[in-house]
Amino acid sequence: VVADPGRVIVTSGFTQGLGIVCHTLVAGGAKRMALEDPWDPDARLIIARAGLEPVPIEVDEDGIRVDELARSNADAVILTPAHQHPTGVVLSGERRTALLAWLRESEAIAIEDDYDAEYRYDRAAVGALQGLEPERIVYAGTASKTLAPALRLAWLVMPRALMDTVRQEKSLADRGTARIEQYAFADFLTRGELDRHLRRMRVSYRARRDLLLEALARELPEATVHGIAAGLHATVELPPGHDERAIEAEARRRRIDLEPMSDYRLSDTAGPPTILLGYAQIPEPSIGVGVREVAAAVEAARRVA
Amino acid sequence: VVADPGRVIVTSGFTQGLGIVCHTLVAGGAKRMALEDPWDPDARLIIARAGLEPVPIEVDEDGIRVDELARSNADAVILTPAHQHPTGVVLSGERRTALLAWLRESEAIAIEDDYDAEYRYDRAAVGALQGLEPERIVYAGTASKTLAPALRLAWLVMPRALMDTVRQEKSLADRGTARIEQYAFADFLTRGELDRHLRRMRVSYRARRDLLLEALARELPEATVHGIAAGLHATVELPPGHDERAIEAEARRRRIDLEPMSDYRLSDTAGPPTILLGYAQIPEPSIGVGVREVAAAVEAARRVA
Repeated sequence: VVADPGRVIVTSGFTQGLGIVCHTLVAGGAKRMALEDPWDPDARLIIARAGLEPVPIEVDEDGIRVDELARSNADAVILTPAHQHPTGVVLSGERRTALLAWLRESEAIAIEDDYDAEYRYDRAAVGALQGLEPERIVYAGTASKTLAPALRLAWLVMPRALMDTVRQEKSLADRGTARIEQYAFADFLTRGELDRHLRRMRVSYRARRDLLLEALARELPEATVHGIAAGLHATVELPPGHDERAIEAEARRRRIDLEPMSDYRLSDTAGPPTILLGYAQIPEPSIGVGVREVAAAVEAARRVA
Repeated sequence: VVADPGRVIVTSGFTQGLGIVCHTLVAGGAKRMALEDPWDPDARLIIARAGLEPVPIEVDEDGIRVDELARSNADAVILTPAHQHPTGVVLSGERRTALLAWLRESEAIAIEDDYDAEYRYDRAAVGALQGLEPERIVYAGTASKTLAPALRLAWLVMPRALMDTVRQEKSLADRGTARIEQYAFADFLTRGELDRHLRRMRVSYRARRDLLLEALARELPEATVHGIAAGLHATVELPPGHDERAIEAEARRRRIDLEPMSDYRLSDTAGPPTILLGYAQIPEPSIGVGVREVAAAVEAARRVA
């Protein structure tokens, strides 16, 4: 990431950062912003609130469909190239090249939401796109996944040409993020504590993930698990015929909180039945029991159907 | 203030609160929001960003002109009835009655920005309007003036009918204000420390204000001082012919930071030449020296003109 201090602006979480960048792009004349489908549906509301038309673009196994993006006439795109949320897909090398070409040709702006760059388990780190085109890509990072969402600390690394406007938009949003957290976080970073914390948590999260995978292979052998090389959740695809909503309801009865992929689908195109299982906060001894309950919920939902 | 917990929402400063309330009103179909003139010009931008047409309404010696407001066809108004910023005027009893009548008749919403309710020196506390019409008035308070702007802690007390929407707008703005400050502030309040702090600071600010008034009477006898019964600044009106901008420039050369009233005028109507002097952060021994420099700046600006 090309991140000299003059390009960095601290925001009150990524959500605020997205809103501020949208307002900044509107001030520059942008009309349409593409976003990945599936993705967080609140993002669509935030984009629309800022006065941009949100344009959902399909994500397949290689990441966002850059060919669709190029046809969409969007002025900007927000995407999660390193670990797509919620599918867990990584944007392929070919797509990366195509995306950069599109950004240059159409003079568009990308927001690279690198929300869980810090949690990678079995593969080499995926480089940020921003370093390849820092004047066309906004890099967005956050402490919400690495430390705590309650901190409300995130950052944007901006193209230089947008800095003045983004500063003004941040000032109009809340006149700056609370200072105490910023000083504390700076101190935490400087003393190397964040790195130590990440190394510790990577080991812990990887152990939880491995237990989850073992339990899923045992309890739900018909499932295909995606997106597990990084992040804090697994994307569990079930054979055709399963009903995500029924599984969610049955899981809730068993005090299991899981998310159906449908919560993230922005258009009407249905995909294979898929549930999302977060594992970061589940203590190791509870993971096997939890997955057994998930399997029971899947079974119960099937009987109901 | 009618402030049961179900009506309260914490925001990242008043600025964010204003934006969120504007979005909430837009969601309910509002088109135009009136605001006091003079007032903070950023407020006009925030109102417009949310999709409302800002309508400046003149403030005279009795506060906002409610007759103009009633003619404005506004769906809402934001005002500072206890101590208008920056004029220091208090909304008169007659205007209060008229405002409440207008709110009921036109089914409008008022935002009562009670930004320095806590600092009153020589008069009985002015009651908040919100208590008289809690379903038509949003009460806005802040810790920025009483403790520190860097905390970014403010609160809205909402009409019940708007709570669901304002919660959603807050979530889309930043998913909630940082928790650490909220817990610390709650503890500070519960232990009675805020009250002790306010009592201490009232004595200290009143002493500074009195020194400022003495110094102004000595060094700038031609000035009329307004708005000194409350707040953290004095509004200093000069005889016709003075040039606010020239005084500001001459003061800056003398390392004095003052604000010309023109910074706050939203329409082209000029008023008498007026400068704003903040005194809360000036140590007592520096106030006399500072006012001497202000008087020298006024004199120098007159010679230049």
